[in-house]
Amino acid sequence: MFTLGIDYGTNSVRALVVRCADGLELGSAVAGYPSGREGVLLDVRDHHLARQHPGDYLSCLEQCVTGALAKAAATKGFRADKIIAIGVDTTGSSPIPVDASNRALGMLPKWRKNLHAQCWLWKDHTSWREAARITEMAARHRPQYIAKCGNTYSSEWFWSKIWHCLKTAPDVFAAAHSWVELCDWMPSVLAGVTDPLRVRRGICAAGHKALYCDEWKGLPDKKFLAMLDPKLAALRDRLYVKAHDATASAGGLCAEWAQKLGLKPGIPVAIGEMDVHYGAIGSGIAEGTLVKVIGTSTCDCAVVPATKKVADIPGICGIVKGAILPGFYGIEAGQSAVGDIFKWWIETVCEGDGALYGKLEKQIASQVPGQSGLLALDWNNGNRTILVDPMLSGLLLGATLHTTRAEIYRALVEATAFGACAIIERIEEYGVPVRRIVCAGGIAEKSPMLMQIYADVTGRTMQVAGSSQACALGGAISAAVLAGAHRNFPAAQKAMTSVRPIQYKPDPARRRAYRKLHALYLSLHDAFGGVNRSADLSRVMKDLLIIKQSASQ
Amino acid sequence: MFTLGIDYGTNSVRALVVRCADGLELGSAVAGYPSGREGVLLDVRDHHLARQHPGDYLSCLEQCVTGALAKAAATKGFRADKIIAIGVDTTGSSPIPVDASNRALGMLPKWRKNLHAQCWLWKDHTSWREAARITEMAARHRPQYIAKCGNTYSSEWFWSKIWHCLKTAPDVFAAAHSWVELCDWMPSVLAGVTDPLRVRRGICAAGHKALYCDEWKGLPDKKFLAMLDPKLAALRDRLYVKAHDATASAGGLCAEWAQKLGLKPGIPVAIGEMDVHYGAIGSGIAEGTLVKVIGTSTCDCAVVPATKKVADIPGICGIVKGAILPGFYGIEAGQSAVGDIFKWWIETVCEGDGALYGKLEKQIASQVPGQSGLLALDWNNGNRTILVDPMLSGLLLGATLHTTRAEIYRALVEATAFGACAIIERIEEYGVPVRRIVCAGGIAEKSPMLMQIYADVTGRTMQVAGSSQACALGGAISAAVLAGAHRNFPAAQKAMTSVRPIQYKPDPARRRAYRKLHALYLSLHDAFGGVNRSADLSRVMKDLLIIKQSASQ
Repeated sequence: MFTLGIDYGTNSVRALVVRCADGLELGSAVAGYPSGREGVLLDVRDHHLARQHPGDYLSCLEQCVTGALAKAAATKGFRADKIIAIGVDTTGSSPIPVDASNRALGMLPKWRKNLHAQCWLWKDHTSWREAARITEMAARHRPQYIAKCGNTYSSEWFWSKIWHCLKTAPDVFAAAHSWVELCDWMPSVLAGVTDPLRVRRGICAAGHKALYCDEWKGLPDKKFLAMLDPKLAALRDRLYVKAHDATASAGGLCAEWAQKLGLKPGIPVAIGEMDVHYGAIGSGIAEGTLVKVIGTSTCDCAVVPATKKVADIPGICGIVKGAILPGFYGIEAGQSAVGDIFKWWIETVCEGDGALYGKLEKQIASQVPGQSGLLALDWNNGNRTILVDPMLSGLLLGATLHTTRAEIYRALVEATAFGACAIIERIEEYGVPVRRIVCAGGIAEKSPMLMQIYADVTGRTMQVAGSSQACALGGAISAAVLAGAHRNFPAAQKAMTSVRPIQYKPDPARRRAYRKLHALYLSLHDAFGGVNRSADLSRVMKDLLIIKQSASQ
Repeated sequence: MFTLGIDYGTNSVRALVVRCADGLELGSAVAGYPSGREGVLLDVRDHHLARQHPGDYLSCLEQCVTGALAKAAATKGFRADKIIAIGVDTTGSSPIPVDASNRALGMLPKWRKNLHAQCWLWKDHTSWREAARITEMAARHRPQYIAKCGNTYSSEWFWSKIWHCLKTAPDVFAAAHSWVELCDWMPSVLAGVTDPLRVRRGICAAGHKALYCDEWKGLPDKKFLAMLDPKLAALRDRLYVKAHDATASAGGLCAEWAQKLGLKPGIPVAIGEMDVHYGAIGSGIAEGTLVKVIGTSTCDCAVVPATKKVADIPGICGIVKGAILPGFYGIEAGQSAVGDIFKWWIETVCEGDGALYGKLEKQIASQVPGQSGLLALDWNNGNRTILVDPMLSGLLLGATLHTTRAEIYRALVEATAFGACAIIERIEEYGVPVRRIVCAGGIAEKSPMLMQIYADVTGRTMQVAGSSQACALGGAISAAVLAGAHRNFPAAQKAMTSVRPIQYKPDPARRRAYRKLHALYLSLHDAFGGVNRSADLSRVMKDLLIIKQSASQ
């Protein structure tokens, strides 16, 4: 028995065929979205804008599923009709305006060219004013709404975007019968759902991003929404009442799509989740296991059994029951930029190409902690966790006249390691145990230097997820559970996920050295992050120079 | 009537023929020192070491004077025998061990290969331990000795170097009958002085660098020196009792050198001064005029009539009567790195060549203050004035994922402008008026961007010295006064110096914008410089982002 995992990323979609018995990956294929720039529709007049053409999701799906099936066919015993279920993950929050038949407006001739009628991609920040206003109004009238997302509502999320559409493109807002998150819409298309009210919505995107919670009976109440705009209150009736965790099905594969994809009609389609959440499942998330998906930014996921009580954790952007694993609170934190900071340094500032990463790593391979005398803050894109403050920026301290670009690169890696530490320490402080860390994503696989620094800085062993396609694998696992190939998620994860043989263990000497640097990092973190408003920073540069001198000897 | 200015720099020596009547520069020539790396003797085992072979000073002198005379010969009315005097400036503190006949040890066959027997170049930092010890001992026993040099004795100075020689090369120390500063030794050679005790010493190098002061009757007392080492106390008797300002002559040109150079024997040789001091004279220094010599580092010079009282100014490294202009207190401040910081950024980090400076300046020419959101501290080589603290380092704050190398370059220029401001404000606070600023040096001539930023940041008009050879011109002016071509220095400066037509005037709008950035700079300066030990930096990044956003609109 096999399942199919579909992973909608920012620039492309990937299909992965997986054997339910042991997680063997039989074949995968990727299709890049044809529209816009690497699949993203941009507006030269506003760099905040990022949209996507919904038609790309459909045309690329055929392409990558066909490709993955063709590759899987090489494995003896595989046939497409042995695929028993499908699981889909996508980016998010990426809401799509749809008509009364659940058709994406952006695919209808009338709206085809209208940017506001397309999918509002997760990284669209046009609605930053609306986000600030929602934060302000919630703080005043419904503090509980944002208590679970670090007390700050984001411009990347559902309500900010829809409200911004209402303000700037009222014609699109009026034409939209409803709005559906991409991770809910794709499964609904596969299941042939033609009424937005009948689209099965996942708790994962609904959770803090749409401010959905069982505590207050679903979405934000109409009175609150009317304070933003009466039309948002009216929209509430055309959205959904109940959101579901991954035990629910989004429906059965409809005949039309079964034929397009060459699969059996009627096989169950799992509820959609956001990419990192299925990625966490595909990386073996469990109570006590933190999964770090390290990419342009990071997403750090943990789970706590729903039978336990979880406090609101200051600065943690999402604590949602059922968001990742059914029966668990999903806890989501993250760093606003990790790979993006390295890319900025290597490609924008140093004007290097992909080869420069490895070249610089080599140049500093023999350096010991503190030898460069540098210390950095990883806030070039603000700080998502634990300060929840987009109005922060990067800092580099300790440069002399001899500091090299390689040393600065390493200091930036170390800065992200200190940032990772802050997340681990914060969630542990609030009772979420972290006994094991599994990292997934391209950087975790490609940069042993980074992984070793993370181990040395955090004092914890870093493991690497077995699959390079952890998100698609998570979708395939969800599909396998739904179709009954495994009795529940833990059983499916045990059978279908793995970690790589290589483990990065902290080195005691380097760990000691990093402790000193970490204390200095914290003094900068607290001073510039507003935690300490009477900071004594007079020793920071001197201490770094002293550490540097002794490290160089 | 003409005079000859000789300027001994770090890598080469320049000769300049000047007409006394109007400062017309008839001809100049440069000769690079043949020994070592660009004239500097290095030790691969110790990057602090920087020495120079004294023989280079002599062989190069013939070469460049001959060259300058040949060029001057093209001007009608000029003949070498119309040169009426010579003035010499050199780097410093650059002490040379000499034998009882005033011969440089490094030129004697026995010591020719010994690094410690050569000239100890100004930027030699091998004696940093001795400098720290002198600071400590003076603070305890003779606080007045270092009160006039910012309470910190430097490893670049006379006593640190000689003491280090005594410790590490006792044979050289024993062989040295005396030690002579390069700026005193070269004139003494030209004057044919063969007894170190008869070498006329300049107050300029003696001043704070050898801790000489009339207040305590010359050099440090023997009791104090004996606390360092009894052999240093004994050396005191073989140094000098009295140091002189630029009204004194170093002697008449001896026959041997008159013949070598093709000049009239017996013409007066002016007392030697350090390069920036004669450079200040050549740039028109006067009461109320600050001269900034902007190079790898800066030297900021001001003068106050000796009839007035000058307080010790905290953080100002030298206040010495007669050090620059006779009859005036010379006040010397400086930034540890300016051009060196730009060179570090462009050449070390960006790995660019000379063309990159202009390219980056062009890229950011249309940016307004604050548009990059960046703020930097110019401490990559510590802070000479006003914090007098070598244990500081660089800082760059405000980078996003879009920050460019050009923006960082500009932020570094702005940082040096804020650093320049600190010096102006400090000396004005202590009663030294700054009514006019004249900049000299290659950067002042080559970077209109930097000059305009300096004007906008300081709110003062920046003028540029008329001569590109301000130091050699200052030597020629001193020679002209000594030979009676002008009745005194102000008269000679009036006739022989000029400023360029181009002036950089502060723009009111940019000035206002920089005031805001300056306030933020000061908060970082004070927090990391140890001035403010309970700093609230929580607004710095936010304010920069707000300024950036409004500047971008």
